[in-house]
Amino acid sequence: MSLFETAELGHKVDDATYARREKKLRADLLDAQYELKELGAFPVVVLINGLDGAGKGETVNLLNEWMDPRHIEVHAFPEANEEEKQRPPMWRFWRALPPKGKIGILFGNWYTDAIVRRATRKDRKAEFGQHIVNIRRFERMLADEGVLILKYWFHLSQKGQEKRLRKLAANPRTAWRVTAHDWKLFKRYDSFVTTSEQALRETDAAHAQWTIIDGSDDNHRSLAVGEHLLAAMQARIKQHKTARKTAVKPVTGKPARKPGDDGRNVLNSLDMSQTLSDRKYARELEKWQGQLNLLSRHPKFREHSAVLVFEGMDAAGKGGAIRRVTAALDARQYHSIPIAAPTEEERAQPYLWRFWRHIPGHGQIVIFDRSWYGRVLVERVEGFCSEADWMRAYGEINDFERQLVDSGAIISKFWLSVSAEEQLRRFQEREQTRFKRFKITPEDWRNRDRWPLYETAVCDMVEKTSTDIAPWHLIAADDKQYARIAILRTLCENIEAAL
Amino acid sequence: MSLFETAELGHKVDDATYARREKKLRADLLDAQYELKELGAFPVVVLINGLDGAGKGETVNLLNEWMDPRHIEVHAFPEANEEEKQRPPMWRFWRALPPKGKIGILFGNWYTDAIVRRATRKDRKAEFGQHIVNIRRFERMLADEGVLILKYWFHLSQKGQEKRLRKLAANPRTAWRVTAHDWKLFKRYDSFVTTSEQALRETDAAHAQWTIIDGSDDNHRSLAVGEHLLAAMQARIKQHKTARKTAVKPVTGKPARKPGDDGRNVLNSLDMSQTLSDRKYARELEKWQGQLNLLSRHPKFREHSAVLVFEGMDAAGKGGAIRRVTAALDARQYHSIPIAAPTEEERAQPYLWRFWRHIPGHGQIVIFDRSWYGRVLVERVEGFCSEADWMRAYGEINDFERQLVDSGAIISKFWLSVSAEEQLRRFQEREQTRFKRFKITPEDWRNRDRWPLYETAVCDMVEKTSTDIAPWHLIAADDKQYARIAILRTLCENIEAAL
Repeated sequence: MSLFETAELGHKVDDATYARREKKLRADLLDAQYELKELGAFPVVVLINGLDGAGKGETVNLLNEWMDPRHIEVHAFPEANEEEKQRPPMWRFWRALPPKGKIGILFGNWYTDAIVRRATRKDRKAEFGQHIVNIRRFERMLADEGVLILKYWFHLSQKGQEKRLRKLAANPRTAWRVTAHDWKLFKRYDSFVTTSEQALRETDAAHAQWTIIDGSDDNHRSLAVGEHLLAAMQARIKQHKTARKTAVKPVTGKPARKPGDDGRNVLNSLDMSQTLSDRKYARELEKWQGQLNLLSRHPKFREHSAVLVFEGMDAAGKGGAIRRVTAALDARQYHSIPIAAPTEEERAQPYLWRFWRHIPGHGQIVIFDRSWYGRVLVERVEGFCSEADWMRAYGEINDFERQLVDSGAIISKFWLSVSAEEQLRRFQEREQTRFKRFKITPEDWRNRDRWPLYETAVCDMVEKTSTDIAPWHLIAADDKQYARIAILRTLCENIEAAL
Repeated sequence: MSLFETAELGHKVDDATYARREKKLRADLLDAQYELKELGAFPVVVLINGLDGAGKGETVNLLNEWMDPRHIEVHAFPEANEEEKQRPPMWRFWRALPPKGKIGILFGNWYTDAIVRRATRKDRKAEFGQHIVNIRRFERMLADEGVLILKYWFHLSQKGQEKRLRKLAANPRTAWRVTAHDWKLFKRYDSFVTTSEQALRETDAAHAQWTIIDGSDDNHRSLAVGEHLLAAMQARIKQHKTARKTAVKPVTGKPARKPGDDGRNVLNSLDMSQTLSDRKYARELEKWQGQLNLLSRHPKFREHSAVLVFEGMDAAGKGGAIRRVTAALDARQYHSIPIAAPTEEERAQPYLWRFWRHIPGHGQIVIFDRSWYGRVLVERVEGFCSEADWMRAYGEINDFERQLVDSGAIISKFWLSVSAEEQLRRFQEREQTRFKRFKITPEDWRNRDRWPLYETAVCDMVEKTSTDIAPWHLIAADDKQYARIAILRTLCENIEAAL
């Protein structure tokens, strides 16, 4: 039995019933919308998909009419523009996500392309399967971030669709809505429906359920969507109001030893004694900066981008290392992004949103001074997020980086490892030096006390996110000169390998 | 005597002097940069212009090397993309403005196109003159908003430029930097220099001064820019630290009568008795919504955009009117922007920045529910900004709207005029009605007490910003049905006239 069969039963609602139910519905929807806004706790993402002529556009317009359009954002996604093509396909959807307290209606979305390309046989099974996997991951992440995801599929029988399209085409006021593309897709009705059914089945989950809407009767369709949306919003609002906030506590004490743990880890196995003489440093610096400059202007680099991630304990030398990299680059080609506390707009979005907004187009280089790894480092150790949040971050980060690489980005991640003794020496130096007094705060001293906890977090991070496509480079950074050269060399090697 | 003559005297700085001065300079620059950031009171906009080969790129790279590149944003502006072409030319510069506390280096900027187009005779005198006027206005506005504007012009004699370009072209590491376009411009050296001189003379102002840099000697050039930038930043920082904050007080009491004022104004002259029967309303609503729908899908509308502004006292019926407009539109085509308190990112930018970020591309409609007029209404009356700020806002707003219109936008501005008695009735109703309880706050009652002050502010606003290209439409709104139809009809007429 087809998934869509119940949507072909010919549901109907008479006008009198409609008028009565609509009146109550719109008042309740408006109420729920304002409560959502007042609460400001989560966004609502409404996906509108399905067959042409099944009433998708009418429904979106109706939702805007019923509710306050000032707090609804509608996004449609025509063909990708140049800026979008240079970035991962999900970039434009990230940009369209509504902030907490608002409703975002995505009309045509991450399903559209995947289904159309498969139904018209532009994609093979394997590619389609990959799209589905990506979608599942993305929706899982959204749901974990608290987004209420509502997915509507508008269905019509083949006969029903033909009738609809003909009717629309016959009326001069609606004829514009039926394009040649629609008729082309209509000819592939079976293929389109079969592909859609597969997509729906494989992406139907408790946290992102599909609701199939019979599109044949206007009254029924409108009420079905509206009442479902209302119930879902009310349920989630209620849940938020009754949920008791369990405060997240910072981790304290020493991390537990895992069985079989001999105390050796990737950090303390690093040879920290490596140094570089001034003369050798000057020579190597010129060599690798020259090399990096050439690579950044390589014609093939115009089809790539570079994403650099710098992480390390306080005073590990991130800033200095970054400046040795940027000195080799044309200032028009790179952006350096210092990651501090998120802004108001950023806090109203899923965690990775504030990094997505900075990812480079082709030929560009973006340098993150601290990064999305904050979640599994400082946020984990300081208890700024729940354990569940940082635990799932590993997978989300790997997924994010894979998307970057797929779109042509060359990722280089550096952990600058400084010993506790050397850090202490640098802190003291900073307190005494005029130019460096800005760099040391009481917080730095506080973080120092949690050294063992940070060390465990770093080891876990390296273990879980050092992937083939974006491995971590652990840099012994007690000697700044050695570290800077190691970074420049690694960066050149990474770019060279990709070109 | 040419403006540039002193820049052809062959200034030179020997290496030893350079090394000594550079050491101090970079430490001081870094200090100033951190103070700028700590203070967070104003942004620095550095314009880099001048002849090719005169060391513009090298200087930008050097500034990034000397200071902390994490707090410098460098923007270059290659040819406008599709998104940019559909909006006013200044849009892409607005997007590149640095927030308070940061330095933005605009490499190629609002001068580049204007000068090159005139030097190559693509623009006539009149067009060039218009560009200059626009630039003066824009820089005046930036300065008034507290932006520290530093404009550097890199000069070379004709011989000097030729020598430079040849030298760059001869070295395989720098040859890429000399393009056919550079040589083409070099052939027009005289024309380019004469045009530039005119542009510089006409845009040199105390609040946005030009500094001409002799580009022939690397050492001299680097120090000249660096030391000038440092002095300017230090001076402004000092000024901010010593300036005593004079708190802005809200306006109170009754507004003063102007001489010859008989008490009649545009608001109290409006015939508030106009109404519309239910039957007539239903008929007219269908007619004008149908008309608006047709116009929004008109092929010619794809070369235009529509900007709608709704202002009015509380409970004047803005929301209801907006919903009657959006009901006629495809939800994919419009965005409705409710203007509330600015976000953190918006507060770090010039006042109009948060409106620029929402202006529509071609074929799109943006509806502002309250708008940039907040400055001359609520901010004036409540004393949220200084008198100087709201006084200059009239001119800035007219300029902003002119730019919108020039880029194809059709602007419709509505003031919904409600009488004090009708407002009171609606407030009371809101307090009693379930769906409307969200709509009434203590602030609404407070604003009501300031009615005469608001009335004066509105009359001033209409007088000063009702321009030919973007006139105000005063709508008698005591009867909601009458107001909605008047708005729909006016909107249709405006769009029709433009198409």
